Amino acid sequence: MRFASDNRAGVCPEVLDALVDEAGRYGAAYGEDDTTARLGDLLAEVFDHEVWAYPVLTGTAANSLALASLCDPWGGVLCSDVAHVLVDECGAPEFYGGGLRLVPLVSPDGRIDPLAAAEAIDRSGEHDVHNTPLQALSLTNLSEMGSAYRATETAALCHLAHDRGLSVHLDGARLANAVVGTGEPLAELTWRAGVDVVSFGGTKNGAASAEAVVLFDDRLAEQLERRRKRAGQLLSKMRLVSVQLVAQLSNGVWLRHAAHANEMAARLANALAAVEGIDVVGHPDGNELFVSVAPERAAAWRDAGAEFYDSPSGGRRQIRLVTSWSTSPEEVDRFTELANDAQLGAIS
Amino acid sequence: MRFASDNRAGVCPEVLDALVDEAGRYGAAYGEDDTTARLGDLLAEVFDHEVWAYPVLTGTAANSLALASLCDPWGGVLCSDVAHVLVDECGAPEFYGGGLRLVPLVSPDGRIDPLAAAEAIDRSGEHDVHNTPLQALSLTNLSEMGSAYRATETAALCHLAHDRGLSVHLDGARLANAVVGTGEPLAELTWRAGVDVVSFGGTKNGAASAEAVVLFDDRLAEQLERRRKRAGQLLSKMRLVSVQLVAQLSNGVWLRHAAHANEMAARLANALAAVEGIDVVGHPDGNELFVSVAPERAAAWRDAGAEFYDSPSGGRRQIRLVTSWSTSPEEVDRFTELANDAQLGAIS
Amino acid sequence: MRFASDNRAGVCPEVLDALVDEAGRYGAAYGEDDTTARLGDLLAEVFDHEVWAYPVLTGTAANSLALASLCDPWGGVLCSDVAHVLVDECGAPEFYGGGLRLVPLVSPDGRIDPLAAAEAIDRSGEHDVHNTPLQALSLTNLSEMGSAYRATETAALCHLAHDRGLSVHLDGARLANAVVGTGEPLAELTWRAGVDVVSFGGTKNGAASAEAVVLFDDRLAEQLERRRKRAGQLLSKMRLVSVQLVAQLSNGVWLRHAAHANEMAARLANALAAVEGIDVVGHPDGNELFVSVAPERAAAWRDAGAEFYDSPSGGRRQIRLVTSWSTSPEEVDRFTELANDAQLGAIS
Amino acid sequence: MRFASDNRAGVCPEVLDALVDEAGRYGAAYGEDDTTARLGDLLAEVFDHEVWAYPVLTGTAANSLALASLCDPWGGVLCSDVAHVLVDECGAPEFYGGGLRLVPLVSPDGRIDPLAAAEAIDRSGEHDVHNTPLQALSLTNLSEMGSAYRATETAALCHLAHDRGLSVHLDGARLANAVVGTGEPLAELTWRAGVDVVSFGGTKNGAASAEAVVLFDDRLAEQLERRRKRAGQLLSKMRLVSVQLVAQLSNGVWLRHAAHANEMAARLANALAAVEGIDVVGHPDGNELFVSVAPERAAAWRDAGAEFYDSPSGGRRQIRLVTSWSTSPEEVDRFTELANDAQLGAIS
Repeated sequence: MRFASDNRAGVCPEVLDALVDEAGRYGAAYGEDDTTARLGDLLAEVFDHEVWAYPVLTGTAANSLALASLCDPWGGVLCSDVAHVLVDECGAPEFYGGGLRLVPLVSPDGRIDPLAAAEAIDRSGEHDVHNTPLQALSLTNLSEMGSAYRATETAALCHLAHDRGLSVHLDGARLANAVVGTGEPLAELTWRAGVDVVSFGGTKNGAASAEAVVLFDDRLAEQLERRRKRAGQLLSKMRLVSVQLVAQLSNGVWLRHAAHANEMAARLANALAAVEGIDVVGHPDGNELFVSVAPERAAAWRDAGAEFYDSPSGGRRQIRLVTSWSTSPEEVDRFTELANDAQLGAIS
Repeated sequence: MRFASDNRAGVCPEVLDALVDEAGRYGAAYGEDDTTARLGDLLAEVFDHEVWAYPVLTGTAANSLALASLCDPWGGVLCSDVAHVLVDECGAPEFYGGGLRLVPLVSPDGRIDPLAAAEAIDRSGEHDVHNTPLQALSLTNLSEMGSAYRATETAALCHLAHDRGLSVHLDGARLANAVVGTGEPLAELTWRAGVDVVSFGGTKNGAASAEAVVLFDDRLAEQLERRRKRAGQLLSKMRLVSVQLVAQLSNGVWLRHAAHANEMAARLANALAAVEGIDVVGHPDGNELFVSVAPERAAAWRDAGAEFYDSPSGGRRQIRLVTSWSTSPEEVDRFTELANDAQLGAIS
Repeated sequence: MRFASDNRAGVCPEVLDALVDEAGRYGAAYGEDDTTARLGDLLAEVFDHEVWAYPVLTGTAANSLALASLCDPWGGVLCSDVAHVLVDECGAPEFYGGGLRLVPLVSPDGRIDPLAAAEAIDRSGEHDVHNTPLQALSLTNLSEMGSAYRATETAALCHLAHDRGLSVHLDGARLANAVVGTGEPLAELTWRAGVDVVSFGGTKNGAASAEAVVLFDDRLAEQLERRRKRAGQLLSKMRLVSVQLVAQLSNGVWLRHAAHANEMAARLANALAAVEGIDVVGHPDGNELFVSVAPERAAAWRDAGAEFYDSPSGGRRQIRLVTSWSTSPEEVDRFTELANDAQLGAIS
Repeated sequence: MRFASDNRAGVCPEVLDALVDEAGRYGAAYGEDDTTARLGDLLAEVFDHEVWAYPVLTGTAANSLALASLCDPWGGVLCSDVAHVLVDECGAPEFYGGGLRLVPLVSPDGRIDPLAAAEAIDRSGEHDVHNTPLQALSLTNLSEMGSAYRATETAALCHLAHDRGLSVHLDGARLANAVVGTGEPLAELTWRAGVDVVSFGGTKNGAASAEAVVLFDDRLAEQLERRRKRAGQLLSKMRLVSVQLVAQLSNGVWLRHAAHANEMAARLANALAAVEGIDVVGHPDGNELFVSVAPERAAAWRDAGAEFYDSPSGGRRQIRLVTSWSTSPEEVDRFTELANDAQLGAIS
């Protein structure tokens, strides 16, 4: 019952096969290879737009490179108060960005409220040289709370940001899950909505370690090349990263794995929603599910071998359950049985 | 005839098998896994000393993390004028180190001269708060010119550095080749000689992408953890990096591959030294060989399909030839034939 | 009726005389002069403790140097959500601190609530390497809302900070006003309460441009020297900065000017509190006064020539009135008349 | 006999009078005042070109702000190996510039050789993303060795820099002395020659502490405003800095003082050149003079009360003698007598 994170899963067979194949070859270094070129073509295809793509190793690096390229060292990035860039990266955006500032907006379900965003941006512009001017908006889709932004929501946020001179970054560590969850095309959720830079995630969707910063024009291309190298994110054997994303983007593998993960989460949500004493929290639009239970119940689950993260929430525990390409229906069903256990229920 | 760089080679079978095995498993994230723990044990064993080890993805990251941890933002790092940290990392040490300064010493064969080093350090301390105080010495072994520091040479440099308050970093991207080349134990070439931090390289010796920052006490441990995370070098699936180094360090694989590469370089050196018009440059102590030839000869070799880097050198071309775990004797012999080609010889 | 800021006032006669005297002389550069040495002695005297003092030009520099010295680049500084370091310095702490993060606590009257502080610190320590560990607490006394921390309040905050491993910085741009306002000795409000580093302000209290970073032991001394130089804050004619603080600290000038400014603010507060439609906001413990009035009234005052800053506050305007060493009773009385103007009152 | 540095001199009467006058007034803060506006007009007048001017406190700040604005964090700045930015600012350019790199060129008389510069720039462009691309050239006029660049020399250097995509910065800490020394107009030595940004110095020429970053178009204006604020170099009482430069630039005061200093240096050079055992080194084009003497002679001079900096130079001492607006002919003559002292001469 492994629901701690999709980043604990192994590597999916399609990626592993491709990796082994590429690993057996001699090839050009530092991304000057054919596989990396092929990745660019595939990304252009799935995004339905010309792209400038920069594979890197981690989501932290992808996000931080993107933000550093969109924001001056003296600028601010508006983000959700549960954004990964804010709470899980040990200040990487500040490091890559030469001391830029992340400005959090309270966002209970992980999505940024347009009115609050507009107000925060307007306020930041009032105090000339002394304040921190907001220069970028960072969204996460699928959000950290499991909810997905629809294309129209993303477009509205991009519109208000651009209107006020901000660029828009999308943290897409689980973007495949959002595409599947919303049923909306990748293009609609990104550049057509106005997103300027995407962190396109592969690791949580079955890769070993592969993300890409994706641009839709070449304005930031040169600085991204430099920043990536300077951050130690340009691998000599970059082709071994690129090939992972190539494998995912070929034949719809990325969407198939995301669909499976989402399905497992929905199966879990449906089952748990029917259990007394378990409250499903928020919008489980993808492969992340949050439920609120009594502390004793959380403890009992853990004792029974379930893996998950949890945090205090008004006398109860808020539990995060994440499924992945490798989650099996049996694993979900075993957890459902545990949740339905009469004795454990009695605890709460 | 692939002699451009050992970082273009594929992944050696031992690493690939281990990677495939680990990739098939679910495991703890962010280095909290058993494989990463095992790596620590193996490093302690090969170094013959307790270690604090931090796997990362690139040599650039390993070197920059090490230097940032040894040197204040206002400090200077003394290095060779051909050091990788100086000429090949797009200012990564300055970035990681918050604006530290690299201070190059002219070093024709890639090794730092102790007298010149002592003089440079002494001079840097004369001008109180206005200057850049040297705080670290960075050595590369195997050096960028293919020469190896012997243990006594390393010890002498460490001694003079420590005497003057500097710490010592060793860029060991090709440290395995130096160990084999000198015939001296890893411990003698590192901590017993006084080295404080080692960038231990795996990528050039058959890994996909795996290096480790190695400390011999815990003084810098906490900041290294933080700096690594903040640089986007802490992978969720870190175990897939660690397992590569585990495979290399098990059963002497790392030394066997380095020995093969060195042997191929020696074979090449011996063959080329016998050819008129080809001068072997410097100390080919490991798997890097430099030869000086007429420009026409360099061009002819390239036309014939040989891969290598070269640079102008007083009317001639200085050619770098690098062998790897995957270089075959046949490849060396084909190049030898090419070198002996009467017609090409006539050009020079 | 100049109440916009105490930093718009001229230079007080005592400082000006001393400055002219020092300016006429040839003297040692970069703070190696007798006047700067004398400043150290005077600061030790008024603080009643040995000090290591670093004159700089601006409060921004003093605060940022202090925070950069107390906090790692990956650390966080807990501060009030109206703190000058947060809202008025264009990210200077992030710049000086290599990308550190300021973590604001809502604090309606400008002072940090100990319970909220303790909770924020405890929360920041829960997520190991991924989060931003809080490493320093920054207080402002006199606070940006005009309230003063008493010595016992400061001591309680320092105690809880130290208990949790944080250092404490005090932004004392208006510390003289707090000393006078609380009637408590400088030592009690600073090091005896547990403050580690003080930004001691001179500019707002009659200097041309003079602040000092004050340490109570030498642990951070060397890095402060380096950071100050590197920030372009070490003047060749540093003695011309030091002499300003020397003049203020001699014969109680600094307290006399602060007492005058506080008295003018109290006179204003008393007069305005009696006027219908004007609400005095918060704790006017020093030389800053906040009042809430109808927007039309604020506009009318401005039209009548009054200078002040204001901001929207629930349909009304919150007006900040700051007095200084150079505010005259007549100026206060003219404003009082304006405030009592029947016609203007009728507007609201 | 005070020849240690022009930055040890007091404040000239014209500046002091203006400072006292301005200090007596209440005025707008943060450079929004009439005096700062007046400074802009005066700079435009003396430069004979529209300018965007940013007063700051130190040459270190002026230089570092300029370089940070001209060069990316991953870029390099070509400068002389005796440049103040390289050897006297504790890495301030690296700090302000987010880790940019200073690349020194050997330049025995303090001036950069165009051929060497062209070669260094060309070489830096050869290694794509891995190297440090040179993006700016920094000249110092009057140079640190006392020589002046003529307008044609400056123009040639700017031409080759611009041709290769580099911007040009001029460190003008002693620019007034160069203008007088060369007899060439300020415009010819700066923007007409192609200089992009000037650090215009006031402190060494009689100000208390006043420099200005001067731009000739508005491309870098916004970032300079932000960077200056963020560096703690935007004073609330900025008018007290501006007024110093206003006083210098009014009625030719700046040129008059520089002419006097140059004249004193020339008088000294002429006198010393006639003394046996004293070698005048380099081009004393302004107010800096270098002479080479026997170590015993240097020591004797110091014992006799002469102030100067010196450094070892091939068994002898190279002595730097700097004159200023406040150097008197009598002071020069006393030193000349000392230099001619038969007994001291006998030592050498």
